Amino acid sequence: MNYQNLFDKAIDRLHAEGRYRVFIDILRNKGAYPNARCLAGHNGPKPITVWCSNDYLGMGQHPKVVAAMEEALHDVGAGSGGTRNIGGNTHYHIELEAELADLHGKGGALLFTSGYVSNDATLSTLAKVLPGCIIYSDELNHASMIAGIRNAGCEKRVWRHNDLAHLEELLAADDEDAPKLIAFESVYSMDGDVAPIAAICDLADKYNALTYCDEVHAVGMYGARGGGITERDGVADRVTIIEGTLGKAFGVMGGYIAADRRIVDVIRSYAPGFIFTTSLSPVLVAGVLASVKHLKASSEERDAQQAHAAMLKTLMADAGLPVMHSETHIVPLMVGDPIKAKKISDILLAEYGVYVQPINYPTVPRGTERLRFTPGPFHDEAMMRELTAALAEIWDRMELRAAQAA
Amino acid sequence: MNYQNLFDKAIDRLHAEGRYRVFIDILRNKGAYPNARCLAGHNGPKPITVWCSNDYLGMGQHPKVVAAMEEALHDVGAGSGGTRNIGGNTHYHIELEAELADLHGKGGALLFTSGYVSNDATLSTLAKVLPGCIIYSDELNHASMIAGIRNAGCEKRVWRHNDLAHLEELLAADDEDAPKLIAFESVYSMDGDVAPIAAICDLADKYNALTYCDEVHAVGMYGARGGGITERDGVADRVTIIEGTLGKAFGVMGGYIAADRRIVDVIRSYAPGFIFTTSLSPVLVAGVLASVKHLKASSEERDAQQAHAAMLKTLMADAGLPVMHSETHIVPLMVGDPIKAKKISDILLAEYGVYVQPINYPTVPRGTERLRFTPGPFHDEAMMRELTAALAEIWDRMELRAAQAA
Ligand SMILES: Cc1ncc(COP(=O)(O)O)c(C=O)c1O
Ligand SMILES: Cc1ncc(COP(=O)(O)O)c(C=O)c1O
Repeated sequence: MNYQNLFDKAIDRLHAEGRYRVFIDILRNKGAYPNARCLAGHNGPKPITVWCSNDYLGMGQHPKVVAAMEEALHDVGAGSGGTRNIGGNTHYHIELEAELADLHGKGGALLFTSGYVSNDATLSTLAKVLPGCIIYSDELNHASMIAGIRNAGCEKRVWRHNDLAHLEELLAADDEDAPKLIAFESVYSMDGDVAPIAAICDLADKYNALTYCDEVHAVGMYGARGGGITERDGVADRVTIIEGTLGKAFGVMGGYIAADRRIVDVIRSYAPGFIFTTSLSPVLVAGVLASVKHLKASSEERDAQQAHAAMLKTLMADAGLPVMHSETHIVPLMVGDPIKAKKISDILLAEYGVYVQPINYPTVPRGTERLRFTPGPFHDEAMMRELTAALAEIWDRMELRAAQAA
Repeated sequence: MNYQNLFDKAIDRLHAEGRYRVFIDILRNKGAYPNARCLAGHNGPKPITVWCSNDYLGMGQHPKVVAAMEEALHDVGAGSGGTRNIGGNTHYHIELEAELADLHGKGGALLFTSGYVSNDATLSTLAKVLPGCIIYSDELNHASMIAGIRNAGCEKRVWRHNDLAHLEELLAADDEDAPKLIAFESVYSMDGDVAPIAAICDLADKYNALTYCDEVHAVGMYGARGGGITERDGVADRVTIIEGTLGKAFGVMGGYIAADRRIVDVIRSYAPGFIFTTSLSPVLVAGVLASVKHLKASSEERDAQQAHAAMLKTLMADAGLPVMHSETHIVPLMVGDPIKAKKISDILLAEYGVYVQPINYPTVPRGTERLRFTPGPFHDEAMMRELTAALAEIWDRMELRAAQAA
């Protein structure tokens, strides 16, 4: 047994495939987002524009969020000091859970340390409380849902992405009396397409299944109060469990589920990933509270984001760049090769001060490597024109147009 | 299939066993810890003293920690806005990883959103990178290690708590050439006993096994620089992977591993629980940086904690209370019944303004329900005398002495 050898090989594989990841060393400039500083490989910090943040609405720098965090920091200190059950249940946590339950029109909500943990903990625990449960999982579901489903140890059926006929085929083939759970996302974050939630709920009704919808890339951004696609489509009451993150549009960190009071109580009482961990810092919770409250009342950020996303897609398409069709705020630009995607990203950073991370396997399927832009309310038209011009220049330099046309 | 029924039953079981958990609604008073406010069931906030926090050294309110968090909040904003690979790698993260690697004398370190996630993600990923791996797990290992081992899907052997002979028996029985990993904690948090780390490492050498030590209840508190029991015992270089939390002695939130650079790189590159989640808020990371740096240089907090823990144990023993033997800072008081433990805790809160959570199954085995006190540098002698007098009164009132003597 030579451990070193095995570890070396694991890393060598990544280099060989061109998908060894190097993290870029940055600091955002609060109050001036999307402007930031890049600290690696330069003489002193270099100013950059961030084009790939999931702080979609810039709430991470919103004055209300910052003020709430500062106040909590001075009122109660840095950490919660314990699990929710042992010393770590602060009044902020209780208030935020009430706020999130209200956001989705549900009886209760439950906080987790991240969206990843909320998916993993909830899905794996649900299946244990429902013996014989079968989970129907959209094939493009996020790694955290896949983890939860695998850790549940239950039967799993994978349905083709957003394919209702295939989902129904699978549901119909199984024992009528088996507990069933259909798990899917509302906005798929890498392609930007949207699930047919109402139709999924119709199937759930027909086959007596529960539904679980990951709204991580939609909460804060869709619906009149930021309740996500389920709010926009008027189907929140039909989805059994809505899951969200506090780290993207809400701008801070953490995750949650919202559901009826009893289901929330079951997860609260049985999920190891909820029970056995220090609760979210009250400083974060206070910031999220301010963020959720603000986005419930204000649509300004949402509207600006949608307008900017539409504008960037148009600019890119007009410049002949291979921007993918997307119904949402996400602007994916197809490259189709991990080495080239990395190279474009490197040139953008070094020569244009544009930071956009290449997206490679396992985040997207091999052969669909891409750049993924997330224009927000603070990316203005000048920035978008500069970005598009830079991309057009690089596309020409690397002779990508011809290659992609072929 | 009646889902409601199954959910109801799951909750009813907990009520029937007396272990349905009700979270207490509190807010700590920064600058005056362990003083706090309790908000539920009173007319307005009621002042309480917290006796069960895992903010062991009160670092959650340390002026350096608070100042660092405030500065980061104003410099870069609330959240990181992305995963470590996509926009969420700030300079704070890089600095803290270097600081933690140095703390444990390792080549590298890796941050996770919690100690729970660091255990789950690292153990499950390690076993996948080492095909055929067998994990040897101390029977009292924490739920997060158990989750990681189960999610690894590999062979597992459970050795009797701190029993070296049993561990060796299991190691010797397995294929010499199989990859092996011995997983244990340094300080077991519910009993306060300590693992024989050097002897475990001897066995690891003899049987060519890797070692994984959870130092969650020791980092910051043991060793000249707070490197944990592995530092105190001079064995940090013999343990392959040291895991810790940023949410207990360091007073904030988050988790990490420290190991040689190559192993850290493997986990960084392969662990879904690390890759697919928004990184720790830079505000938290900045606070931890200040906390780790402070505790590397100052032993004042550690010394005061040890002195106060020793004093509280003596006071309790002198009062004839069933305080358990513990080699560490943890002061467990045995009750042995979930209903009585809850009742004592309720009386302490309602009549004495003392907050200590009852510890029940599944956190400890059934029949060993207890109260667990965590005196820190800010619990003074007067508080301890009051606490002991209150406990003695309740023990008499509930006629526990006679019952426990029988
Ligand atoms: C669809 C989806 N679900 C869940 C998560 C995890 O959320 P969090 O970053 O809060 O852990 C992510 C991304 O991070 C995601 O893209
Ligand atoms: C031994 C042990 N390991 C890991 C953890 C998890 O650490 P965290 O609270 O940072 O998730 C805990 C408790 O919370 C613990 O007691």
